[in-house]
Amino acid sequence: MDRVEPTPAIITLTTDFGLQDAYVGSMKGVILSIHPHVRIVDITHELPAHRILPAAYLLREACPRFPPGTVHVAVVDPGVGGQRTPLLLKIDDRFYVGPDNGMFGLLMADLPLQGAWRLERREHFLHPVSNTFHGRDVFAPVAAHLAAGTPPDAFGPAAADPSSLSLPAHHEETGTLRGQVVWIDRFGNCITNLTDKVVSRWARGASFTVHTASKKIAGISTSYESTPEGEALSLVNSMGYLEVACNQARADRALGLREGDPVVLERVPTGDGRS
Amino acid sequence: MDRVEPTPAIITLTTDFGLQDAYVGSMKGVILSIHPHVRIVDITHELPAHRILPAAYLLREACPRFPPGTVHVAVVDPGVGGQRTPLLLKIDDRFYVGPDNGMFGLLMADLPLQGAWRLERREHFLHPVSNTFHGRDVFAPVAAHLAAGTPPDAFGPAAADPSSLSLPAHHEETGTLRGQVVWIDRFGNCITNLTDKVVSRWARGASFTVHTASKKIAGISTSYESTPEGEALSLVNSMGYLEVACNQARADRALGLREGDPVVLERVPTGDGRS
Amino acid sequence: MDRVEPTPAIITLTTDFGLQDAYVGSMKGVILSIHPHVRIVDITHELPAHRILPAAYLLREACPRFPPGTVHVAVVDPGVGGQRTPLLLKIDDRFYVGPDNGMFGLLMADLPLQGAWRLERREHFLHPVSNTFHGRDVFAPVAAHLAAGTPPDAFGPAAADPSSLSLPAHHEETGTLRGQVVWIDRFGNCITNLTDKVVSRWARGASFTVHTASKKIAGISTSYESTPEGEALSLVNSMGYLEVACNQARADRALGLREGDPVVLERVPTGDGRS
Repeated sequence: MDRVEPTPAIITLTTDFGLQDAYVGSMKGVILSIHPHVRIVDITHELPAHRILPAAYLLREACPRFPPGTVHVAVVDPGVGGQRTPLLLKIDDRFYVGPDNGMFGLLMADLPLQGAWRLERREHFLHPVSNTFHGRDVFAPVAAHLAAGTPPDAFGPAAADPSSLSLPAHHEETGTLRGQVVWIDRFGNCITNLTDKVVSRWARGASFTVHTASKKIAGISTSYESTPEGEALSLVNSMGYLEVACNQARADRALGLREGDPVVLERVPTGDGRS
Repeated sequence: MDRVEPTPAIITLTTDFGLQDAYVGSMKGVILSIHPHVRIVDITHELPAHRILPAAYLLREACPRFPPGTVHVAVVDPGVGGQRTPLLLKIDDRFYVGPDNGMFGLLMADLPLQGAWRLERREHFLHPVSNTFHGRDVFAPVAAHLAAGTPPDAFGPAAADPSSLSLPAHHEETGTLRGQVVWIDRFGNCITNLTDKVVSRWARGASFTVHTASKKIAGISTSYESTPEGEALSLVNSMGYLEVACNQARADRALGLREGDPVVLERVPTGDGRS
Repeated sequence: MDRVEPTPAIITLTTDFGLQDAYVGSMKGVILSIHPHVRIVDITHELPAHRILPAAYLLREACPRFPPGTVHVAVVDPGVGGQRTPLLLKIDDRFYVGPDNGMFGLLMADLPLQGAWRLERREHFLHPVSNTFHGRDVFAPVAAHLAAGTPPDAFGPAAADPSSLSLPAHHEETGTLRGQVVWIDRFGNCITNLTDKVVSRWARGASFTVHTASKKIAGISTSYESTPEGEALSLVNSMGYLEVACNQARADRALGLREGDPVVLERVPTGDGRS
């Protein structure tokens, strides 16, 4: 347990490249050719194509859990070869390499940004640099050199203003808290933009119901098993967001929910409440 | 070849989490933050959601092939946050970490169970422990601590009676052996609950035919190429089970087979047989 | 950066096994049991079942990017258990292990073949050797022993004539260059058999249009963003092939393109050209 070896270099990969093509394999080859000792860890290559918000949401949740010093490469890059800047960020002692399109926005909203650099020093790129695959030609080699010890400011000048990103806003009205579905996960659980904190502050200990267009759910459960199999419930999920789910079934299908659909909390009038 | 380094610590991951969400990445981050030197090996994250039998079948086949000492984390966990016990098992010198729901039942049926512990010592968990994601909060950190050298009995008291699991039973009648499809693989091969051993004991060297609802197949072939492209055949697969397949085509579609459908072997009457 | 440790042994895996079954996990277990220190890198397990050309195309692009000495295991093996030869190749200082069915043909067309051996020495296999899963029983153990230092010629005699493979031929006529779609990637980009080199030599600096059955595209763009969102364009992709794509949309669906469909370049008559 009292190990003396230094922490090994780790590079994680998060992309929308899928796995039917050579894209991911090429990136891994480029990385290992520069830094054969680095550990490559796949986070996912199955992000929805071209979409920034799901990528930002996943990165926010997974990446800070890795050890300090980890280099996270994230490539959802519809603007590749165009005007967007290739970026290196240092956020809370981890490094992030990818296009400047908001993907790192949810991380920056919550955690200290300790540095931002534009990737301009082409000697750290793979040549010739294509216009369609910076994952292989820019981000992979930069990550490998960084993990091998090249200091962040060797890759280019400071970046002034990395793109930010927010979840859609929620709305508080008299007796109601209006949110929406922002992400539907693998199990059909419908995750909203309402955090535990926002819900608690609004509810102030009072009872409430959770409404989707087709369903009224009484309050918040503590686990999926709280309702019979197939029944709808709401709970605060493992990321701290209010989620509408069904026990062992897909809530999106059972309740007809899609991304963007409203989820509204209503206070139960005192006297006929349920806590 | 005569290496002096100790065998490196290995943790494998097998889940139904898919790869479109942050679940798998979060588990990897938690593991590497506790034990940065461990090798994480993905077995799969594409198990069918909430289903225990396919998970048990896969674990039975893949996990014993890893080196002794490997820590296998397996999470198909519809009962997360409910009554089911989080478990650590030692089976044939490998460790298994996951919910007590039968996933490890096929392993225990065939291989020596050398220890079972309830995961109760919360100092080895990630805090706060959520009610919806024990993969991240319980199983990943326990696996990391175990791989780093914490002894199994430090995680909790002995577990009396881990859940068992069996494949559906087959039935022998005069001249027939009745089995069923228990799993359809990626290629559409229909794997039955009939092992090589059961079939041999029943057939006693005599010829037989293999019947599905729509097809009669003569005896057992030795490879997919034994029939013309697209044609049905049966063979003993690499896991020792009788399988109904088609050469370079999907047997499930070609023969209309689904999980649970009967596959019946009939002895060929002496005299008009074919061996 | 000036590391003294030797380059670690790397084995990559490329298969059409998918991830819902135990096949990939079993191969990893077999490899690590023989050589616990090797790094296993997944290239992909999502190749289309039984198809050689997409596998060959991916291997050609990804594998040469790994460090010299890497052992690449590739298994798309519809002929498993039949007549095809299990093979070990050395191509441009990397090793390739898999069935002799053309999968390595595009690599051999472009890079120096330095050795070829038939895998016949059964003491390096996993026993009993099945007839349906040589990935586990032949290719995985051979790769592990090779990565651990067993010399290539210990696995069997020289192989005379490994299977070759070519992309479909293109056709030059007066003023036209006829190619076809050979692969559609994850994003719906339609990759043709026309390389940058072939196109340049044919065009000799003159302007041309790119025709699919439903669409005429003016010349070659430099990035996806060159057209408005959803619009079709053609470009030379990161692998050096002409590709028909749409900015942030699926060209295969938008233009009704499938593998094998013609893509024809036509020279623009001088005088009304656009360069």
